[in-house]
Amino acid sequence: MGIINDGFMLKSNTARQLYEAVKGLPIIDYHCHLDPAMIANDYKFRNAAELFLGGDHYKWRQMRSFGIEEKYITGDAADYEKFAAFASVLPYLIGNPIYHWTHLELKRYFDIDEPLTPESCERIWNRCNECLTRDEYSAKNLILRSNVEVVCTTDDPADTLEHHERLQGFACKVLPTFRPDRAVDIDKPAFMGYIEKIGVKSYDELVAWIKARIEHFNSHGCRLSDHGLEYMPYAVGDAAAVFEKKMSGEELTKTEINVYKTALIQVCAKEYARLGWTMQLHIGPMRNNSTQMFNKIGADAGFDSMNDLTVAEPLSRFLDSLDVTDELPKTILYTLNPKDNYVLGTMIGNFQRAPFKSKLQFGSGWWFNDQRDGMEAQMCALANLGVLSAFVGMLTDSRSFVSYTRHEYFRRILCNLIGKWVEDGEYPADMETLKKIVSDISYYNAKAYFNF
Amino acid sequence: MGIINDGFMLKSNTARQLYEAVKGLPIIDYHCHLDPAMIANDYKFRNAAELFLGGDHYKWRQMRSFGIEEKYITGDAADYEKFAAFASVLPYLIGNPIYHWTHLELKRYFDIDEPLTPESCERIWNRCNECLTRDEYSAKNLILRSNVEVVCTTDDPADTLEHHERLQGFACKVLPTFRPDRAVDIDKPAFMGYIEKIGVKSYDELVAWIKARIEHFNSHGCRLSDHGLEYMPYAVGDAAAVFEKKMSGEELTKTEINVYKTALIQVCAKEYARLGWTMQLHIGPMRNNSTQMFNKIGADAGFDSMNDLTVAEPLSRFLDSLDVTDELPKTILYTLNPKDNYVLGTMIGNFQRAPFKSKLQFGSGWWFNDQRDGMEAQMCALANLGVLSAFVGMLTDSRSFVSYTRHEYFRRILCNLIGKWVEDGEYPADMETLKKIVSDISYYNAKAYFNF
Amino acid sequence: MGIINDGFMLKSNTARQLYEAVKGLPIIDYHCHLDPAMIANDYKFRNAAELFLGGDHYKWRQMRSFGIEEKYITGDAADYEKFAAFASVLPYLIGNPIYHWTHLELKRYFDIDEPLTPESCERIWNRCNECLTRDEYSAKNLILRSNVEVVCTTDDPADTLEHHERLQGFACKVLPTFRPDRAVDIDKPAFMGYIEKIGVKSYDELVAWIKARIEHFNSHGCRLSDHGLEYMPYAVGDAAAVFEKKMSGEELTKTEINVYKTALIQVCAKEYARLGWTMQLHIGPMRNNSTQMFNKIGADAGFDSMNDLTVAEPLSRFLDSLDVTDELPKTILYTLNPKDNYVLGTMIGNFQRAPFKSKLQFGSGWWFNDQRDGMEAQMCALANLGVLSAFVGMLTDSRSFVSYTRHEYFRRILCNLIGKWVEDGEYPADMETLKKIVSDISYYNAKAYFNF
Repeated sequence: MGIINDGFMLKSNTARQLYEAVKGLPIIDYHCHLDPAMIANDYKFRNAAELFLGGDHYKWRQMRSFGIEEKYITGDAADYEKFAAFASVLPYLIGNPIYHWTHLELKRYFDIDEPLTPESCERIWNRCNECLTRDEYSAKNLILRSNVEVVCTTDDPADTLEHHERLQGFACKVLPTFRPDRAVDIDKPAFMGYIEKIGVKSYDELVAWIKARIEHFNSHGCRLSDHGLEYMPYAVGDAAAVFEKKMSGEELTKTEINVYKTALIQVCAKEYARLGWTMQLHIGPMRNNSTQMFNKIGADAGFDSMNDLTVAEPLSRFLDSLDVTDELPKTILYTLNPKDNYVLGTMIGNFQRAPFKSKLQFGSGWWFNDQRDGMEAQMCALANLGVLSAFVGMLTDSRSFVSYTRHEYFRRILCNLIGKWVEDGEYPADMETLKKIVSDISYYNAKAYFNF
Repeated sequence: MGIINDGFMLKSNTARQLYEAVKGLPIIDYHCHLDPAMIANDYKFRNAAELFLGGDHYKWRQMRSFGIEEKYITGDAADYEKFAAFASVLPYLIGNPIYHWTHLELKRYFDIDEPLTPESCERIWNRCNECLTRDEYSAKNLILRSNVEVVCTTDDPADTLEHHERLQGFACKVLPTFRPDRAVDIDKPAFMGYIEKIGVKSYDELVAWIKARIEHFNSHGCRLSDHGLEYMPYAVGDAAAVFEKKMSGEELTKTEINVYKTALIQVCAKEYARLGWTMQLHIGPMRNNSTQMFNKIGADAGFDSMNDLTVAEPLSRFLDSLDVTDELPKTILYTLNPKDNYVLGTMIGNFQRAPFKSKLQFGSGWWFNDQRDGMEAQMCALANLGVLSAFVGMLTDSRSFVSYTRHEYFRRILCNLIGKWVEDGEYPADMETLKKIVSDISYYNAKAYFNF
Repeated sequence: MGIINDGFMLKSNTARQLYEAVKGLPIIDYHCHLDPAMIANDYKFRNAAELFLGGDHYKWRQMRSFGIEEKYITGDAADYEKFAAFASVLPYLIGNPIYHWTHLELKRYFDIDEPLTPESCERIWNRCNECLTRDEYSAKNLILRSNVEVVCTTDDPADTLEHHERLQGFACKVLPTFRPDRAVDIDKPAFMGYIEKIGVKSYDELVAWIKARIEHFNSHGCRLSDHGLEYMPYAVGDAAAVFEKKMSGEELTKTEINVYKTALIQVCAKEYARLGWTMQLHIGPMRNNSTQMFNKIGADAGFDSMNDLTVAEPLSRFLDSLDVTDELPKTILYTLNPKDNYVLGTMIGNFQRAPFKSKLQFGSGWWFNDQRDGMEAQMCALANLGVLSAFVGMLTDSRSFVSYTRHEYFRRILCNLIGKWVEDGEYPADMETLKKIVSDISYYNAKAYFNF
């Protein structure tokens, strides 16, 4: 009765055969926003509202778009009221990934087949809540049941990584990711407070601190960094002087801001290269667009959207500045605006070097592009412009413990795409090679690339 | 023999079933360029050339592109010669919406099944002309036969709205739309003449005049405004000083121009919000690209194309400037350049507020995008990023009295898209909900949203 | 066993019927990078590595992306080692045009059906090499066997055209194309050396020299020019003063650079218009992104990618500056970045003039877009916005003597696209008109448009 059956998203026999080859592969979730404390504490969710709606600004946005009062989204309504509000919206999210994600999650974690609607809402609420009382629905068990081999969280350089330490020995590796945005974003109001908090007095001290933190992360198994960039900065100049000017309370010019950002990311990147880490660049969000709602609810609450600035020239200059001295680390480029798909798909080709299978990667459809059309657009761009077979594949980028089904969603879409090419006669029905290709993209490429 | 049959554009059973649910719904044509005087006068067309080609720069462009002499387009050739010239081009417009539009119009208004070609040209010319002598082909009757409930024309603030007054009591509501571009476009040659014509001496007088005209329009049933923006301006400053500088004959800087435009549109927007109107922003045309042809034929003659400037930051700042004081009206964002589809599709999500079902709307594929691919791209972007079910749907944006078939075209494409998702197993075959969704998008959402 | 069969890329009966109508038509390859000396010398290839991999930076890029050492790409490995390295990558290029191109080339020139893989590598290597010893595989015979009627090479204004002279009488017309980039690119390091080489002392002398060279090319049958533009320049000013400043060794501003480029291209364009030539503008590559690899291997070695600057306004102003005095030549606009497809597709409509069937053309999917998705995107944009039927169609843009199969690839994709529209009921099954349309696009439009 529901849409989640064996053939979901698999529109050809070849696609279904290929999916059989990858459905059982472990998951390497190399980029997410899970809270390591929740994992370490083996958190148990109080009910389906907390599990499905807590912190999920994707769903909040769609609820607002349907006219739901904020009270039932982030406000003080009762949990069941919030869940019911979501259930009243969901049938109308036709064509939206949340429709698929939610029903995948209900099916895989709660064995619920029927669609979530106002009519089924209470039944599903009760069924989920009954499950959530059981140990097998704790944070750790949700991860283990999902066949996750590695989880990379996203962490500030100042983080002690104490929770990651507590997780040593857990059957799934939970590793930190180094995300120094707060040290890089000299143009953000929070910068001065951050510098004060970490207690550095000069640019040189900051560089030394950053390098020490990278070593600290490395010793905790970190093999990935992440930089969130609202635009791609590139400028050459005296970063120490800019830092000093900022500390003196003066206003910085756009160029000065870019000089500082460029230099500090270069410092980081050279360390990543030295240690064999992978650098992720996430380019293009425009955050906190509604001042009113930012003041009421804060950041990461569903009020972000896409920027549309140019990216090719500064990105080329930045990558080249590192490549020229062989200090460009393995790098994954993500764009929030799909107009950049072809720019990134060709940019990576400029810096590919042996012995890596695609040392530079064009990252999976991100955030607003994390849906069937967006994933297909990213994979087709990559296939047309580079080597899709060498792609490190999917990540959840999620705060949710049941979002691992997005790996299933991705694998189905991948197998469907490749299956279509085969059935259309564009690639031979060489199932051995085809299974290797989809297995590599689903699991083995990430395993080899990141080398956790 | 022709392509316009019951299954036109409907490639699945589900699509065909869904179309049955919407084909009989009335039309709310909330944005068009019909001449209210022609309606009030119940204009009768002298022949098929006037009806199909008069003022239709879409068709003129394609005739030029095929090498037709201007004489047979906007020149002094006889009407039949022009019609025959168009008929000689049409078979070669494969893949172009004009091929579909024309045959829809011939079928629905003249019951003509055969394609318009050089061979059929004279037959079709005679058949159409014979029909056009009849009363049922007058302007008013074409509207009524098309099952149109509301038509919103596009009108200058200085307009007396006398023709709209004459149309009170007409079975189709013909309402004005407030389009103050000539007062906003301080960078256009016509600005000084316009200011002189309306007789204001200062920015304050202009603001007072604009507010008075909005009230005048409101009292005539106007519930919509429209702003045509070649690019999205945003700058903060002293608009009165800019106006004064302009009146003194000085050259304005780009920033000054943007200060003025921003301020005046903000003034308007706050009035729209107060009165419960909807604001339309049409962003991105680049007009009158050929100086030679502009000098010969004037504006709106088929010499416009798409600009490709960035839009995200100024649009975000502009919308936020109104939202922060709760003075952002219901707003529909249109882009001429489809590279902006994902920017607009995410931008609206920043400002959605209860109790509106999608207070902010991403408008239907506009102008060059008003074709199958363009409409599907807009609807897929909206579905992926927002709530397609809450979409207010189609408008003709047309000067033609037979363009209502574009609503049929849209409804068929909508039903086909959603039908495909269902037949692909991506949404349950819950026909009741599906029929509600396509009916809402075809009619009921617009009815509720605009509240005429 | 291989994928290259009669139905390759043809997914409907109509598509297959249409392809029958165009498969035997001659090829007009109006834009390529073949070396005229190699043709004149009737070059014979020493082996399959030289034929398939020599100078083919498309393949080099993918080999690097798969982790192949540079030694096996542009280095000193043995030819068979390079071929074997390519064969080890090819099965993993699923979804990449090189997979299709290579197998089309193996099938059409060597009658090889099996896929190139590590297993088949040696067999295929031997078979190809055996063939290459025969006269029918010489440069001239490869062209003649490919049914090529006209080849347009790409040549510097300073070229003597001696090889083209030697080719008079060859059954395929081999004509030069005038590409004055080195005289235009005042911002490139090579500019001063070029000016010195051609021996001009002032801007006026340069203009006179350019005009003389255009006449020289014209007298050698040249009917096409080509301008490679990393971005679209447009500025009005004193080009002679800029030239003088450059000669004096001073640094130029961006505006000065654009003044010079605009003026010199205008000078050229007016000559092209006078002589009835066609001007090609190739907009948007970003070259030599890796300084390290540029220093090691040089230009055109697979280290270029797409820029993403705005193009609409300068392109409109440039074309208008020529159109206003009726000195705009026939012009083909190409973009490297598909985000510009709709901009160019609408831009051409501004300047269409009788009696030309699409005097302005939106050029075929170029370079990174020369694949199924890219070609379909270009053709759909053109169909939606202009007159696809008037399109001059495909070119190889290639350095390879076996790349004529890309015309087959294009024709198949064209017939498949149009066949789908017919089978979907969007155009009548009027096979006579349909065959005329696909034949025109495949051959006759180019023949009429260029008038060689």
